[in-house]
Amino acid sequence: MNDVIRTLEERVSLRKYKDLPIKEEDLDIIIKSATKAPTAGNMQLYSIIVIKDEETKKKLSITCDNQSFISKAPVQLLFLADMQRWFDYYDYCNVKKMCKEKNIEYNGPEEADLFLACCDALIAAQNAVIAAEFLGIGSCYIGDIMENYEVHREIFNLPKWTFPVALLAMGYYPDDFERIHRERFDKKYIVFNEKYRRLENQEFKEMFKNRGNMDYEKLGVENFGQFMYLKKTGADFSVEMARSVKKALENWKGENI
Amino acid sequence: MNDVIRTLEERVSLRKYKDLPIKEEDLDIIIKSATKAPTAGNMQLYSIIVIKDEETKKKLSITCDNQSFISKAPVQLLFLADMQRWFDYYDYCNVKKMCKEKNIEYNGPEEADLFLACCDALIAAQNAVIAAEFLGIGSCYIGDIMENYEVHREIFNLPKWTFPVALLAMGYYPDDFERIHRERFDKKYIVFNEKYRRLENQEFKEMFKNRGNMDYEKLGVENFGQFMYLKKTGADFSVEMARSVKKALENWKGENI
Repeated sequence: MNDVIRTLEERVSLRKYKDLPIKEEDLDIIIKSATKAPTAGNMQLYSIIVIKDEETKKKLSITCDNQSFISKAPVQLLFLADMQRWFDYYDYCNVKKMCKEKNIEYNGPEEADLFLACCDALIAAQNAVIAAEFLGIGSCYIGDIMENYEVHREIFNLPKWTFPVALLAMGYYPDDFERIHRERFDKKYIVFNEKYRRLENQEFKEMFKNRGNMDYEKLGVENFGQFMYLKKTGADFSVEMARSVKKALENWKGENI
Repeated sequence: MNDVIRTLEERVSLRKYKDLPIKEEDLDIIIKSATKAPTAGNMQLYSIIVIKDEETKKKLSITCDNQSFISKAPVQLLFLADMQRWFDYYDYCNVKKMCKEKNIEYNGPEEADLFLACCDALIAAQNAVIAAEFLGIGSCYIGDIMENYEVHREIFNLPKWTFPVALLAMGYYPDDFERIHRERFDKKYIVFNEKYRRLENQEFKEMFKNRGNMDYEKLGVENFGQFMYLKKTGADFSVEMARSVKKALENWKGENI
């Protein structure tokens, strides 16, 4: 199998890192690969913040659902959806004045711009992940960066039209690291032809047959779905993420930050 | 340079395709790479719809801002942010009943779940792009899939808690295709250390010095920023995308679809 496909297929989420800083030349390759990623209208609607500061990493390990491994990653890359830069540029270019002269409406950033910028940010992030992987540098996406919006704005000095959508903890794979690949669902439940299809009960039974199988009684639940709801969707971190993202959306569209 | 880094760096957005169906074995590799992508909690909060139907492709070429090349791509992959499958599974597992018994609140999908699912979908999509690229299959992200939400729901039979966040038009590179790489901004304007930084006017001047340089007077504008505002942010397709995404957000949280 070719290097490219192997890199895509063999990557695992790495939460334990070799105690070694990331070489600048490796970091340069990672960043370069990220910035070469496809981007809407060649506008690069994202920014990347490179984090090495120990204090910041410690804070993130707390604000991102108390995951101590985060502080151990030598480098973290924060990917921001960023419309601020373009709207600052529009100001620099007197776009508001032009709109007035042409008698057309001036539109500030909409929710759609946030989504489009999130797309750009994630596409760039995944390029970074793959370049890193090839260099022997493992990574872990920290979705919890979408929690505690106000705190993260403060830490990173984020203006109104930026949103921290993905954090990547990165470090070299430890020596003799054994990769354990978590099984994905059979593709027939994920990939459809021409139209979406909701699954039937019998299919759920089949789809999840290799998941869980733990002592549910001991866990105080009846099945894997209940276990996952309590662990993920209904958990405290999800409640916080729901609050935080609502706040971010309000601020994105609101008059004041 | 290694195959992996070269694949990441040399990929361009392809809008003209060889007149040749995509081989099933190639499509299988692309789909497999996508489904191996990192995903929050190993939950695969996305679905992929494989589109080959000519009628559907024609419709998309209209609904996605009238871009006729879309109908010429032999395959299109639609990436959905998908919380529907998990919430259907939660129903199958009687999660609501459990919440009642445990006297805890049952939370349906929040905006944060939509963002998290969008992350999953984009990360998977970029893996598909890279696998395809390696196989000589070019691709183009169609951000316009976020427009015309109601029409796309109808075409693809999308239930409430799915959102079409990325469309990839795909096909083999034409013979003797000359790749033109669009220059990205200097990384000093995109990548920051430790904290975000808004750019100064002098930096904007420098940052954009290789962009545009067209006959602005003829175009009825004063500069590149005004040109880009009219072409992108303030254009009709952006107004439609703003409307469509607002509607999608309303439906996501609303009682009725």
